[in-house]
Amino acid sequence: MTFSLSSWSAGRLERVEQALSQWVPADAPAGLGEAMRYAVLDGGKRLRPLLALAAAESVGGHEEAALRAACAVELIHAYSLVHDDMPCMDDDVLRRGKPTVHVKFGEAQALLAGDALQALAFELLAPAGSSIPPAVQATLTRLLARAAGHAGMAGGQAIDLASVGRKLDEQSLRRMHRLKTGALLQASVMMGAACAAPGEAVESALADYAWAVGLAFQVVDDILDVTADSATLGKTAGKDAANDKPTYVSVLGLERSREHARELLQQALDALSRSALADVQALAALARMVVNRDN
Amino acid sequence: MTFSLSSWSAGRLERVEQALSQWVPADAPAGLGEAMRYAVLDGGKRLRPLLALAAAESVGGHEEAALRAACAVELIHAYSLVHDDMPCMDDDVLRRGKPTVHVKFGEAQALLAGDALQALAFELLAPAGSSIPPAVQATLTRLLARAAGHAGMAGGQAIDLASVGRKLDEQSLRRMHRLKTGALLQASVMMGAACAAPGEAVESALADYAWAVGLAFQVVDDILDVTADSATLGKTAGKDAANDKPTYVSVLGLERSREHARELLQQALDALSRSALADVQALAALARMVVNRDN
Repeated sequence: MTFSLSSWSAGRLERVEQALSQWVPADAPAGLGEAMRYAVLDGGKRLRPLLALAAAESVGGHEEAALRAACAVELIHAYSLVHDDMPCMDDDVLRRGKPTVHVKFGEAQALLAGDALQALAFELLAPAGSSIPPAVQATLTRLLARAAGHAGMAGGQAIDLASVGRKLDEQSLRRMHRLKTGALLQASVMMGAACAAPGEAVESALADYAWAVGLAFQVVDDILDVTADSATLGKTAGKDAANDKPTYVSVLGLERSREHARELLQQALDALSRSALADVQALAALARMVVNRDN
Repeated sequence: MTFSLSSWSAGRLERVEQALSQWVPADAPAGLGEAMRYAVLDGGKRLRPLLALAAAESVGGHEEAALRAACAVELIHAYSLVHDDMPCMDDDVLRRGKPTVHVKFGEAQALLAGDALQALAFELLAPAGSSIPPAVQATLTRLLARAAGHAGMAGGQAIDLASVGRKLDEQSLRRMHRLKTGALLQASVMMGAACAAPGEAVESALADYAWAVGLAFQVVDDILDVTADSATLGKTAGKDAANDKPTYVSVLGLERSREHARELLQQALDALSRSALADVQALAALARMVVNRDN
């Protein structure tokens, strides 16, 4: 029987949405909870949570730990979008087809909501009175903090900021994306893996898989920015070109970018074979989805 | 021999400054590290680190854990000041006698530096290959995340934001400060305590101590905002009154505020007696310093 990603995803997405809805507070003071929920709920493809859950299942990881890891990476992703959209950064007004958080709630509340979402991500990873082994909680915290911080996502955003209007070569572009988008995508997979202790060989293969998927994700993002329209994307298309931001398409051209995405997919699938894990169908299907998506 | 807070503090402050200088990266990409270091190093009274270290010493806690906890709370405090000073929040240009981070580095870099400092705080708490028991790492993560997030500091800032130009009664004011400032001060003490496992009775007494010190800190802050000048404070004096923000002085008046600070100090000292800990001199001296400071 062939593997169906949509069947596999359906139940997992439901669990993630339920958990996020339970954990992102409705009752935080003075409208903060409302802004946090607006930023997180009912939106996005949930690629990072699905990667975390698929990786955890492939190694037989602790189930509650996996769900918490999945939601925590999504909260970091969501907070980064809130801050990224603010006027002092990308100044974007549309996200997932809705007004961005600062347009809806004001800049100050958007800033605070992003800050509170980051704190909540770490709170999820260290619950009181849980059956998650403390060593797993500590490892998840370490992986997420590194991926979110100066040597990961925030560092990549700083490079992005400094690169507007400048010509980057492929190597610099790759470094920026490895940090800005790749680090958190890779952390999603590695946090899933850390819900068990699969050993170095498996971790190394999954890290290679995650690296290739993360880079492919960004290459495809750049392709879609020039080939898709805003309605399909749910965000402003052509934004990078308009902002004179370097992209894979501007550096490699459209055809070579598409070819590069296919090469990265093959690298991701090869890494899964190398892992020798029995159950990697969901991870393989997610890699294919990342490359073949149209939004 | 009488206890000297300045002698006690000297060596601890040096350790904290060295550790912060080592852990806050100089080499983060594209100027991000420079902005992070500017926000953290050579500034501030380091009250939170000193509280964490004093609490850890009073219970005989793990030394490396205590130093990491001390630096982590300071990073959260520093990031909150960076974001708080931004134009969409308090729009302040002076902090610790220097231009604020967004004035010096631009708003986008200030936003990212704050975000990266928050991530770094959690990274410090979960080091790889350390002798800190994983259960201690997880507890520290939980305490800090709760204190920083929607049910703590960020929640208090949201109330603060919503309260500008509105009359708050003493109860609402107390709730705002309990979250905005009190939660992180309390976490400093409780994280120090969590570097050992001192038992419920001690934790409860230290929580009472920390609660009283946190509230006293804010009452004294409000007093100094009207009685001190900008040069002594190292930040803009009279700011709250100018912004029509509710303060203890505007609600209780100056004399009753001073009296209240003295009452809170007594509550803090009583809680230390109740803890039955042998070595609470540093904690007692820090409480006195909070109430008697002039900046």
